[in-house]
Amino acid sequence: MKNYLDILFNPQSVAIFGASNEQGKVGAMIMNNIVACGYRGKVFPINPNKKYEGKDIFGYKVYPSIENVSEKIDLAVIVVPRKVVKNMIVQCIENTIRTAIIIPAGFGETNEEGKKDEKELTRIAENGNLKFVGPNTMGFWSANISLNVSMGYMSPLPGNVSIISQSGSTGVVICSELRGMGVGIRYFVSSGNEASLSFEDYLEYFINDNETKIIAGFLEGLRKRNKFLNICKKNVTKKPIIILKAGTTDPGIKAASSHTGSISGSDEVYNATFKQYGILRAQNINQFLDLIRAFICINLPEGNRVAILPGAGGMGVLTADASDKAGLNVAKPSQGLINKINEILPDYWSHSNPFDPVGTQDLSVFPTLLELLLESNEYDCVITNVIEIRSLLEQYFPQHDEGKQIKQMMIEVMDSTEKSVARRQIKILNKYRKPVVFISHVYPNSKLFRIFEKKNVLIVKNPDSAAFVLKSLYEYNRFLKKIKENSQTTIQR
Amino acid sequence: MKNYLDILFNPQSVAIFGASNEQGKVGAMIMNNIVACGYRGKVFPINPNKKYEGKDIFGYKVYPSIENVSEKIDLAVIVVPRKVVKNMIVQCIENTIRTAIIIPAGFGETNEEGKKDEKELTRIAENGNLKFVGPNTMGFWSANISLNVSMGYMSPLPGNVSIISQSGSTGVVICSELRGMGVGIRYFVSSGNEASLSFEDYLEYFINDNETKIIAGFLEGLRKRNKFLNICKKNVTKKPIIILKAGTTDPGIKAASSHTGSISGSDEVYNATFKQYGILRAQNINQFLDLIRAFICINLPEGNRVAILPGAGGMGVLTADASDKAGLNVAKPSQGLINKINEILPDYWSHSNPFDPVGTQDLSVFPTLLELLLESNEYDCVITNVIEIRSLLEQYFPQHDEGKQIKQMMIEVMDSTEKSVARRQIKILNKYRKPVVFISHVYPNSKLFRIFEKKNVLIVKNPDSAAFVLKSLYEYNRFLKKIKENSQTTIQR
Repeated sequence: MKNYLDILFNPQSVAIFGASNEQGKVGAMIMNNIVACGYRGKVFPINPNKKYEGKDIFGYKVYPSIENVSEKIDLAVIVVPRKVVKNMIVQCIENTIRTAIIIPAGFGETNEEGKKDEKELTRIAENGNLKFVGPNTMGFWSANISLNVSMGYMSPLPGNVSIISQSGSTGVVICSELRGMGVGIRYFVSSGNEASLSFEDYLEYFINDNETKIIAGFLEGLRKRNKFLNICKKNVTKKPIIILKAGTTDPGIKAASSHTGSISGSDEVYNATFKQYGILRAQNINQFLDLIRAFICINLPEGNRVAILPGAGGMGVLTADASDKAGLNVAKPSQGLINKINEILPDYWSHSNPFDPVGTQDLSVFPTLLELLLESNEYDCVITNVIEIRSLLEQYFPQHDEGKQIKQMMIEVMDSTEKSVARRQIKILNKYRKPVVFISHVYPNSKLFRIFEKKNVLIVKNPDSAAFVLKSLYEYNRFLKKIKENSQTTIQR
Repeated sequence: MKNYLDILFNPQSVAIFGASNEQGKVGAMIMNNIVACGYRGKVFPINPNKKYEGKDIFGYKVYPSIENVSEKIDLAVIVVPRKVVKNMIVQCIENTIRTAIIIPAGFGETNEEGKKDEKELTRIAENGNLKFVGPNTMGFWSANISLNVSMGYMSPLPGNVSIISQSGSTGVVICSELRGMGVGIRYFVSSGNEASLSFEDYLEYFINDNETKIIAGFLEGLRKRNKFLNICKKNVTKKPIIILKAGTTDPGIKAASSHTGSISGSDEVYNATFKQYGILRAQNINQFLDLIRAFICINLPEGNRVAILPGAGGMGVLTADASDKAGLNVAKPSQGLINKINEILPDYWSHSNPFDPVGTQDLSVFPTLLELLLESNEYDCVITNVIEIRSLLEQYFPQHDEGKQIKQMMIEVMDSTEKSVARRQIKILNKYRKPVVFISHVYPNSKLFRIFEKKNVLIVKNPDSAAFVLKSLYEYNRFLKKIKENSQTTIQR
């Protein structure tokens, strides 16, 4: 299997069956994306239509048939109408092509006829030593060779996150969001109906890929449960696996089945399995994206004692609630720590956790407090707010001229103050190992965040998300430690 | 009480104790906001500092003392240092001013001394027939006279939502977000420590205010529980009350107490009370904002049968899960409805609810399907996605020149296609009474949304939010019907 996937994700040459130059057609989109993202291999568009005779697409000569291509092809991309997919696969096999992507839908996810056709495809491919992605897939991205062979408007940055998505469009949205957040992707694959290669195959490959540091999956249902369990068992201490499992309710399971023909099992079984193997579970796309970035940006908390440093009192209350509900410990500060803070804050600060400076106009207290909290041994992690009065100013529209000038002046003041606060915060973060999560309700829409993102500071949108990621990473850490302890005990025996 | 609040929220004249022209000072911010939002009454800045002798602020003459103001003052805004607040209140009373806002913090929310001072303030005010907002408040906004007497960077649009917030900064953030969403505000008040006027007083006033159609409260704890119960009992069929209750856990309750000195009760008691009086409860700021907009944008669902029309298969599965979990009924379509859809979609559509068109490139099917679902009598509400491939294109960066041109072309195509889809959807919405919620993960950051917002179309950020608002409004409708039934039964007896 590894050989197949090595070829699939690192082809030296790609043939596109059904390549087109008519914008709007999938065959054109695939061609465009291959070129758009700078694929470093050879490209062979194939289209028997007379109008392509002697023509090229983006400078690549169009061939009427694979028979006319003399070079060895590593990967075939099938974008022809579904009725002729089978013929193309047969041609691929005849030309000893070993991997393919079958883009068209209308197979196992639809009716009996579609299911029959899909089985037939699988049988032919297996007999012909060909493995394929799909059918009913959006394609994939491979950073190694900059190959974007997908029908989605996306252009991932290279990176160390590998993503498997059983939903194509949702996968593309995830890739697009990650690009917006500056997160790089090693592999992305829309696994489609998984008639040949399945979620479990990609998962195994990504686990064994040294450049993949984090694996994230949008899962509707497993097809090879035993394989999944075996892989996960071997992975436990290797790298984090984050899964957004859709199809957790009866209507959801039915929808998943008609979407990619997957078989969802009971949600309790998934939960138990995930727990057993330390797999992190996201309940929605936000949590999914937050967890991915959390593993990139912060260390694992060594305990669950959280210090809350809110930008304002109300946020402090909401964050305390969210933390407690998530199972974090909003631990009280020692008198010693209170005394230290007394030295820098007016006496009406909260004197407790949340550490609310109460209506301070001196924004520099936020980094100072952050450092006090991180250097104390009373907390394992911190939740705080991005200081961004700037974002309020954008919804502030004074009617009088002086007001407009004041607004402009305040924007300039805030731009510079908030940037300097952010820079001090980043310096402090680099000094301490402890995880800190920032909250901003306008994330990711502010230039200020670019400063944070460049330095891999974790920002989430609300208190619930902040508490969720810290709790999840804390539990993952506990899981790892337990595994380690158990294995040491075993060795000692 | 009504008389006091009438004067407070509709003053003909305002005196600002501690007015300033030094930007950065609260006294300057208040002055700026009064002018910025176009207050239609008289303004009297007061500051004994010699440097203001014979000077004005924004064209308003500065007086050394209230004694020097000959006109009758309706509202006093106190922005002086906390130690001299008491003196100012005494002066107000001597000059028969009946309402005030006390901005400074450092009273009941801090230590014993602060508590004592606050009690003293309250006693003096009560004896002197003066009611006040605060202390420890950000101020308020009143649309009637365009009075923004607050220290927040906000400039609300006039409208029919009245907001009470026990957290000042959170309140300002809420006002700012609502402005961004085009939602107008009738009254906003940051109630602060509520030493004189309290949450319950404002609530009663807003319930009786004809121009207030929706009431929304950020609540940390009630001070006059019996009054609250009495008001709510009288309100049940009048107007919706949405409450975000913070301080639901032990650490949250403690934080609330040190924030505004409020006394949170057990969360179960609040839940039971809210349920009894049909108060809609939000668990976080997103739900709070979603519910406010829901009441502005959509009718109450008559039942809980939801049709899901997803933009893509994966979103359909997630939305089915979210709907089922929220308690909505993802009801199966009749064969008749399936037959109707068969006439317009290729045969590989999902044939079930979610109604997934499956990889269609013809975006016009979305409005067509929406209309079929709304005109059928099989569903009470619809959840669908905003069609916005445009937002993906913004994170799409082709490297080759042709790719850049194609991107530009697709942006233009999508701009026009998506706008025309949106316009057709809006037309259909206007034709049917049934509530429809749109999901967009990039809301509110797209020009497309301006079209929807102008027509009061409800957009939320994710499937969970969509299911939450529909379920909440459905339950509110059931509550209203039950009350009606009960009262009819009573009459018949």
